[in-house]
Amino acid sequence: MNTETDPRFQRSQQAILTAARELLLEKGPVAVTHVQVAERAGVGRATVYRHWPRTDQLLAEAMATVRMPLLDNPTVPTRQWLTRELTALARQLDLDDVRAVAVTLAGTAPWDEQMNARRAQFAKILADRLADALDAAQTRGELRLSLPSRDAAALAIGPIYYRSTIEHASADAALIEAVITVVGTWVD
Amino acid sequence: MNTETDPRFQRSQQAILTAARELLLEKGPVAVTHVQVAERAGVGRATVYRHWPRTDQLLAEAMATVRMPLLDNPTVPTRQWLTRELTALARQLDLDDVRAVAVTLAGTAPWDEQMNARRAQFAKILADRLADALDAAQTRGELRLSLPSRDAAALAIGPIYYRSTIEHASADAALIEAVITVVGTWVD
Repeated sequence: MNTETDPRFQRSQQAILTAARELLLEKGPVAVTHVQVAERAGVGRATVYRHWPRTDQLLAEAMATVRMPLLDNPTVPTRQWLTRELTALARQLDLDDVRAVAVTLAGTAPWDEQMNARRAQFAKILADRLADALDAAQTRGELRLSLPSRDAAALAIGPIYYRSTIEHASADAALIEAVITVVGTWVD
Repeated sequence: MNTETDPRFQRSQQAILTAARELLLEKGPVAVTHVQVAERAGVGRATVYRHWPRTDQLLAEAMATVRMPLLDNPTVPTRQWLTRELTALARQLDLDDVRAVAVTLAGTAPWDEQMNARRAQFAKILADRLADALDAAQTRGELRLSLPSRDAAALAIGPIYYRSTIEHASADAALIEAVITVVGTWVD
């Protein structure tokens, strides 16, 4: 029987990923070690090593179990879409698991190639989706952009991200409204 | 002779802090261990343990050697002060050491009480100084704030911080001008 389809392997794999995720959320990335994961998952240390030889792989898998906030496909009117999506992003960044993964991504990327690739991909998806939606809105005459649409991600998401990860507080409707106002002049 | 004034202690203390800082910048916070610091500083492991019994103390000391960007005392006109200070903050966040400390602070605070206290202090200083300067500017009639001055830190610093730590890019003059515009209506 192939290891990947062996139900015993699948059970221990699930237990290992759950343990790794719990350790990340409760104690931070430094706690995601083979020893601690094996102990909490109730499996042998060798089993953890066999499938995730390196600690960074184990951490990356634990992080991948948390769905990160992205932006849904744009709808018209763009301003309402933006309000809805930025509010959803703010509420997700209120969650301990999303914030844990976000700060771990930013806090490991400068020194870890794999984490850096994930960070770059995450940043690119958000920037691309926002830029495309705002450019399309401008083409439709909904908005006159006040700066390059590529800056919109930093401008719209930055305050919500800073409030969550540095101020450890929640972005409210007034803050979200302010960032939407700054991307350009909305034509009512 | 008292240990603290012993020149041999002072030399090894300096070597230990330099080693800890170098390891943080080159390899990240996980590399700031007693073993690696002792090896690089060329001192015995026991010397490191004696003065910094815990790894988190060693990391905190290494981080404290990097001067974090704050805001200088406000000058009038406030708009020029804000442009100057946010530009300085953006240029400091371009530096690898400042960015390393910022992401390490955010990436350890959820699980470390001491780091969390530093994070809170850092966030509070920036928010207080910006809020005070903007409230004073409004009182002088330089500006009509478009949202509570306490939101100004997230709004003005958030995009610069996000661009540096998530987008790994540099906040340019156009982005800085945009965040200054959003805090309120400036009276020319």
